[in-house]
Amino acid sequence: MNRVCELFGIEHPIISGGMVWCSGWRLASAVSLNGGLGLIGAGSMHPDNLRHHIRCCKEALKAGAPGNSSGRDLPFGVNVPLMYPQIDELMNILVEEGVKIVFTSAGSPKKWTPFLKEHGITVVHVVSSSVFARKCEEAGVDAIVAEGFEAGGHNGREETTTLCLIPAVSEATSLPLIAAGGIALKCQIKACEALGAEGVQIGTRFALSAESSAHENFKKHCLGMPEGSTKLLLKKLAPARLAFGSAFTENAARMEEAGASKEEMAAYLGKGRARKGIFEGDIDEGEIEIGQICSMVKEMETVKQIMKSLV
Amino acid sequence: MNRVCELFGIEHPIISGGMVWCSGWRLASAVSLNGGLGLIGAGSMHPDNLRHHIRCCKEALKAGAPGNSSGRDLPFGVNVPLMYPQIDELMNILVEEGVKIVFTSAGSPKKWTPFLKEHGITVVHVVSSSVFARKCEEAGVDAIVAEGFEAGGHNGREETTTLCLIPAVSEATSLPLIAAGGIALKCQIKACEALGAEGVQIGTRFALSAESSAHENFKKHCLGMPEGSTKLLLKKLAPARLAFGSAFTENAARMEEAGASKEEMAAYLGKGRARKGIFEGDIDEGEIEIGQICSMVKEMETVKQIMKSLV
Repeated sequence: MNRVCELFGIEHPIISGGMVWCSGWRLASAVSLNGGLGLIGAGSMHPDNLRHHIRCCKEALKAGAPGNSSGRDLPFGVNVPLMYPQIDELMNILVEEGVKIVFTSAGSPKKWTPFLKEHGITVVHVVSSSVFARKCEEAGVDAIVAEGFEAGGHNGREETTTLCLIPAVSEATSLPLIAAGGIALKCQIKACEALGAEGVQIGTRFALSAESSAHENFKKHCLGMPEGSTKLLLKKLAPARLAFGSAFTENAARMEEAGASKEEMAAYLGKGRARKGIFEGDIDEGEIEIGQICSMVKEMETVKQIMKSLV
Repeated sequence: MNRVCELFGIEHPIISGGMVWCSGWRLASAVSLNGGLGLIGAGSMHPDNLRHHIRCCKEALKAGAPGNSSGRDLPFGVNVPLMYPQIDELMNILVEEGVKIVFTSAGSPKKWTPFLKEHGITVVHVVSSSVFARKCEEAGVDAIVAEGFEAGGHNGREETTTLCLIPAVSEATSLPLIAAGGIALKCQIKACEALGAEGVQIGTRFALSAESSAHENFKKHCLGMPEGSTKLLLKKLAPARLAFGSAFTENAARMEEAGASKEEMAAYLGKGRARKGIFEGDIDEGEIEIGQICSMVKEMETVKQIMKSLV
């Protein structure tokens, strides 16, 4: 029992990332039913759809629901990227639906932490540097996720890796610290504990699980790719780690090497590429957001199998 | 006592990287006198100068030399980048001088491993992927250094971080495995052990030690830089991690963003920039090769102090 387990009321300090187009109620509830903390990824959901996922998740985690013999409602959380367009509406939904744990990312922790705390919500903010970790502490968050360069999808500009980031953030704040980025294996959880983390947030391995709402094509493409098959790209926009073997990724990499401007990259990226790649399974035209550790995730497993191998 | 300690005959499985313009006999012998394995960095030495450093190192590590109360000659090694121009001459010097441990890097392990092994030399090769780790095993090396994206100076193209690389290499080979890249602290050594490494190679912290032959300006510039002050650059040539706050680094970064060609980058780099930056202390015009973890190395210490804090 450590501070992360206490804070969330969970058995194992393992959190599934709130990943766009992957982290619906099925994945989130499966992780919580197996002793971790599942997150719903609000970033890819219209407000009404988010409400639906929250309700389904609550239902699946109720005391006495199938797989829940704990005698209590099990916890879950919602990840909210703070650049979400209808952010006010979304925040009200979280309060109305009685969500108890919110992970915020991609924005300042100062704006929404007071609102969430006033409503009795546990707030965790995701950072990629110890400078931002200190700002989180000032803003009154309850815990921090520090995410390294290895992570899939959106990523920090400083490219600090998990191995370098965790000791730095651990030194900079006294808050409970959750490591993220490049973590898919039990040995990596042990490593992050040695670095000063009290829990881990795992993305890639859960994104490729049976319960992830990602398209089968996406999962097949990413499972067990050769080492070095992902790259941090779109650096002039918001840096994101993408998998190769997709025309979009290859073109984006070539354009960047040739010095394409921010405007040219934005025009090529357009809208809806993450949905296309992850949810619709269009590998060539979509954004294939996945972490560097996908080379070590070789087959699709259920959340139960994954959790068993991690604890 | 693990396989790395046994292989080299050392007390602690801590190796100082054979860094250009930093790793002369003073640094190498100090590390070995304190229970680790010191490496001389041949990459920045003319053959005659290398011979001089080897002889001084042997002298400093002799049984009964000041600080050596072990009753035996202490071991040391030489790091050889395989693209060294006078490589044949250099290899003959290693044999003539009775060097017992050689770390090879930046080239194929197949070319020189048989020659070195025939002369009874322990051979270690540095890799940045598990594909190359397997090639090392086929080539008959005795151990592997797997070095992640965090490392200073020359670096792999795949950008695999130490956290992702060590479990992959550990799975790919059964050879003794030494982790490198981003390691400067005791907690990081523990983390690498959890990942499957039996030893660590440390660069940055030793490069900034009192015994390093790097210029004082270089050490001052790199000690305790803010997080995110280094970047992997020169990607169209041979990728190298460099520190900001140098006109050369800033210009190189700008040129790369603007899509400068390999030829343009080579012309701007020219010759002798590493010597200029690291050995002559010309921060603006030189290449300031240092690892990402320099932000956590805050003051200049002696090797003795460093080793004490790591074991």
